[in-house]
Amino acid sequence: MSDSESFSLHPRLLGESVFVLDLELSRLVLMNNKRFPWLLLVPRVQDIAEIVDLSDKDQGILWGEIARISKLLRALFRPDKLNVATIGNLVPQLHVHLIARFRTDEAWPKPTFGFAPPLPYTRDGRDALTARILAELATEGQLGEAGTSERLI
Amino acid sequence: MSDSESFSLHPRLLGESVFVLDLELSRLVLMNNKRFPWLLLVPRVQDIAEIVDLSDKDQGILWGEIARISKLLRALFRPDKLNVATIGNLVPQLHVHLIARFRTDEAWPKPTFGFAPPLPYTRDGRDALTARILAELATEGQLGEAGTSERLI
Repeated sequence: MSDSESFSLHPRLLGESVFVLDLELSRLVLMNNKRFPWLLLVPRVQDIAEIVDLSDKDQGILWGEIARISKLLRALFRPDKLNVATIGNLVPQLHVHLIARFRTDEAWPKPTFGFAPPLPYTRDGRDALTARILAELATEGQLGEAGTSERLI
Repeated sequence: MSDSESFSLHPRLLGESVFVLDLELSRLVLMNNKRFPWLLLVPRVQDIAEIVDLSDKDQGILWGEIARISKLLRALFRPDKLNVATIGNLVPQLHVHLIARFRTDEAWPKPTFGFAPPLPYTRDGRDALTARILAELATEGQLGEAGTSERLI
């Protein structure tokens, strides 16, 4: 069960990311790294390191949120591939990476983890992208992926 | 829907892994790399690259298989962390990596993908590990993780 009152993002995640929205279970944040479109889902449950340590109910909610954000990345960015991963060797707080990858991106075909120092967005760039993500989340399913995407880009 | 008749593992995955078992949806294979305890789940569905391209039903089955194999890795190896990821930038066939990680392993805290050339098991080592995995899958839930693990190690 999520508990927004006592939840806090791990300091390292907090320093590397920008708040987007609290979903039913997870906090959605944008990695402040314009090298890659890169979101994180962080379940608002303290002291959990592995997906299988969540309750069965919360696991079901998390899988749904992963599917939802995967579709969002595809609608917004039309990537060649999605990368979805929970690694967490450095940050013990459970978090799921969702990254839109392109054959033309800097790290391809390697994973993006630890690839290069993050390249922060400008404040305007960050705000514009966050607004696009929120608009997509707000309208998803209304127009289908193609229509929504073309309207927003 | 899975289709074992027409399913075949991507040649690259075939060359790097050892067959363990066909679960309801996915083929479970062991990466032939004794640097890390590393399993793959490969849904037996052709021409699918992303989890969200599976039917909702198959996504549900896959999430269950990911949870089951996560617990298996924990029971058998007692890792410091599980890494669960679908990357697939090199191999277009959908496959989910499940890796038992240790603070003492060669790649820690980096991800294992592309870390170093695989170090193949001996035939005996491979057969022994496959047998342990099958025994754990066959007895899971009977004794709980601790009991099962201690009996098998």
